[in-house]
Amino acid sequence: MRTYLDCIPCFFRQALDMTRITGVDEATQKRVLNEVSKLIPDFPLDASPPKMGREIYRIVKGITGKNDPFKKIKQKSNKLVLDIYPKLKEEIRSSDDKLLAAVELAIAGNVIDYGVKNSLDIDREIEKILAGAKKSSKKSFDYQEFRNALNNSGSVLYLGDNAGEIVFDKLLIEELSNILPDTKITYVVRDKPVINDVLMEDALSCGLDKIVDVISSGCDAPGTILDLCSKEFLELYKNAELIISKGQGNFETLADEERPIFFLFKVKCPVIANHTGFNLGDIVLKKI
Amino acid sequence: MRTYLDCIPCFFRQALDMTRITGVDEATQKRVLNEVSKLIPDFPLDASPPKMGREIYRIVKGITGKNDPFKKIKQKSNKLVLDIYPKLKEEIRSSDDKLLAAVELAIAGNVIDYGVKNSLDIDREIEKILAGAKKSSKKSFDYQEFRNALNNSGSVLYLGDNAGEIVFDKLLIEELSNILPDTKITYVVRDKPVINDVLMEDALSCGLDKIVDVISSGCDAPGTILDLCSKEFLELYKNAELIISKGQGNFETLADEERPIFFLFKVKCPVIANHTGFNLGDIVLKKI
Repeated sequence: MRTYLDCIPCFFRQALDMTRITGVDEATQKRVLNEVSKLIPDFPLDASPPKMGREIYRIVKGITGKNDPFKKIKQKSNKLVLDIYPKLKEEIRSSDDKLLAAVELAIAGNVIDYGVKNSLDIDREIEKILAGAKKSSKKSFDYQEFRNALNNSGSVLYLGDNAGEIVFDKLLIEELSNILPDTKITYVVRDKPVINDVLMEDALSCGLDKIVDVISSGCDAPGTILDLCSKEFLELYKNAELIISKGQGNFETLADEERPIFFLFKVKCPVIANHTGFNLGDIVLKKI
Repeated sequence: MRTYLDCIPCFFRQALDMTRITGVDEATQKRVLNEVSKLIPDFPLDASPPKMGREIYRIVKGITGKNDPFKKIKQKSNKLVLDIYPKLKEEIRSSDDKLLAAVELAIAGNVIDYGVKNSLDIDREIEKILAGAKKSSKKSFDYQEFRNALNNSGSVLYLGDNAGEIVFDKLLIEELSNILPDTKITYVVRDKPVINDVLMEDALSCGLDKIVDVISSGCDAPGTILDLCSKEFLELYKNAELIISKGQGNFETLADEERPIFFLFKVKCPVIANHTGFNLGDIVLKKI
């Protein structure tokens, strides 16, 4: 997906938010915005937004000297969701359609971003999403197609998105493994710290490695920019019979690909809503 | 009032909105954003936001070749509010406290921006504001102090803000003239087109010149930057016994001044809310 002009104000907003997380003073924050502004004239609109997201993170790291300012936030998000893991597991177990419940929860998890402060917040968000998912018209929710595609897939590549959310991914993966005990599932994390995106250490601390193979995409953008991915990842990507792509960043970088990709995310931004024709707030399970 | 880092994403948003109004293509819109981004590194945070607003408008004009892209929008706003002028007049006439009603309406008018599409929208907004004004705690609403100050003032300088809104200003000025027949009131417009701000032609087409003196501030920013104002305006400004300042732009440029200024506006932006301690959405009648 290309970058729209409406993304540009948002790049500055994201740069500012990221920089503030590092705790630097206002003058240093301004230096970050100055550097971002220098990139704007030459940034091509046919590049995907996460390409700029990667540049912004690089600037934030370079100027603030903090390599992984979201580390504590990521650890806390993981812990908060791990704490309610038994409850989420029970939610799925007691559902008429366990896979559907796990998918809905996995999308709920995409909403849990680093703004979430405590388990009460998470509880509220999950309730809201589950209630919304049940009420929603689900126009962009191709559950039956997803289920059919799963049954015909010998291998699934699961592209992770954020910390915290990874625990919801784990629940969905466990459900997939129950249904498809012979299918090989691989979970993919980012290669280096970028915002609050999942890294190998998150996968390990949340126990993903106990249930599936976990690999890095080789890419350090908040999305999956194929040009920046490792050979190992690209090999799996090319051969996977089904790809599950979590979150907006992966959608933005892979939406134009000709692969069997099901995108799972919540439409959190008006640019994506306009681009796709989905509604802001929609939960999406869709093969593009 | 200084510029905050949170204003920077908003500068790009405003530049994009303004440029789109001119109807130019995306490549030209991008050129505007490129030029704005070049200003960021050297823009001093101790300057007020309307200083950047002025620069952005200058860039939009320069690149699109449109000197007054908001002209039709301004004319339409004026017409829409002139159409309901008799109804507004009756609203004031039938109020227990006519001045209070006129002040509340004048602030309501500050909300009517160029996004308003028809008289139904305006009706709705006014109803909402009047209902809100009656309910609100009015913590930032020093009406009694304003009324007392008026009684002791031989001259009032009234700084206009937007087209459309100017008709509400007219209603308040008529009320002021009723109460204070001997007080000299001067209405101030911007010197040159800038966004949808009031110009001399708006004052003339809305009949302000029939009831008060109308002058230009000499300034072409979306606010009142004293360094850019004319001698004539500064003379009046220095000697006015009371100044009524409409809108956020005038507030941002005059908030730190040591003059008897009552600011009338609705808090439409979180930066101003944080800076002042007012709440987002508050209607403000306040001497700083």
